[in-house]
Amino acid sequence: MKRIAIDMDDVIADAAGRFIEYAQLRLGKTIAPVDLHNRTWAEVAGVQPEIVRAWLFEEGFFRGMKVIADSQEVIKKLSEKYEIFIVSAATEFPNSLKEKLEWLNEHFPFISWTHTVFCGHKYMIQTDYLIDDHEKNLIRFPGKPILFTAGHNMHLDQYTRVNNWKEAEKMFLS
Amino acid sequence: MKRIAIDMDDVIADAAGRFIEYAQLRLGKTIAPVDLHNRTWAEVAGVQPEIVRAWLFEEGFFRGMKVIADSQEVIKKLSEKYEIFIVSAATEFPNSLKEKLEWLNEHFPFISWTHTVFCGHKYMIQTDYLIDDHEKNLIRFPGKPILFTAGHNMHLDQYTRVNNWKEAEKMFLS
Repeated sequence: MKRIAIDMDDVIADAAGRFIEYAQLRLGKTIAPVDLHNRTWAEVAGVQPEIVRAWLFEEGFFRGMKVIADSQEVIKKLSEKYEIFIVSAATEFPNSLKEKLEWLNEHFPFISWTHTVFCGHKYMIQTDYLIDDHEKNLIRFPGKPILFTAGHNMHLDQYTRVNNWKEAEKMFLS
Repeated sequence: MKRIAIDMDDVIADAAGRFIEYAQLRLGKTIAPVDLHNRTWAEVAGVQPEIVRAWLFEEGFFRGMKVIADSQEVIKKLSEKYEIFIVSAATEFPNSLKEKLEWLNEHFPFISWTHTVFCGHKYMIQTDYLIDDHEKNLIRFPGKPILFTAGHNMHLDQYTRVNNWKEAEKMFLS
């Protein structure tokens, strides 16, 4: 059975949407998803990077993320043909770890803790595919890297790209 | 640079010693390390497995573990010649995750979050070596498995074994 590693933030968990909520709540700034294209969160919010970065260390930031459209149904289908690992670069954010486990248990109950990986780098993960929104994770990945479209990666053109989970379903199941 | 994955519990963190402390404190039972040879914690404590297992889900259980002798100095030396990853099967225990990060920051400050991995299975970790006390982790590991002696694994004879960190130093650095 081939293995697929799947990232969390901005791939199955709507991190950008959570940033938009926080920007509204904390800074009173209304941001649209399209505003995030090829710009950092701090640039879009018009604040110092430390302000936005501090949100990532707060309790509740990760736990409250919405689920990315179609990810549940498609990954459930994928899990019948592939061995699925959720691989999240989470060890930078100590509060995120338990929240991410709880979030997965709630939204992806068919993913076991045995197949959940919290790490820093991902280049030592031995799977056939990695679906991720960050070039830093894809660039050294030894298997086949798949770029999942997010506002911040619109400029990248050297990776196989899926724009959403329906496209991923087509790629892996047809 | 070759990569070594190193387990935490009973390899760098004294899990057995922590169990002995809890058995004294909670059950009033005095247990010696030698009592643990080839027996489960529950057998040694003479209680139902659920009693002992519940301790692993308690706050503080992992955070309070002592450091295994010589592990700090030897892993520091190893880290000059090898790329070291700490790889702990921790996602089964939600409270352990933050505690394990804090524990590593305190006792192994030279190990970055980039090289810390919390997972379930370990067979998808691509390193040249895995130093671990559990056969379940070593048996499917694709690199070279190294068994680190612990009370519960004394009966295993099909793995290259190191009894302590001085022996690991000799194996990897001489």
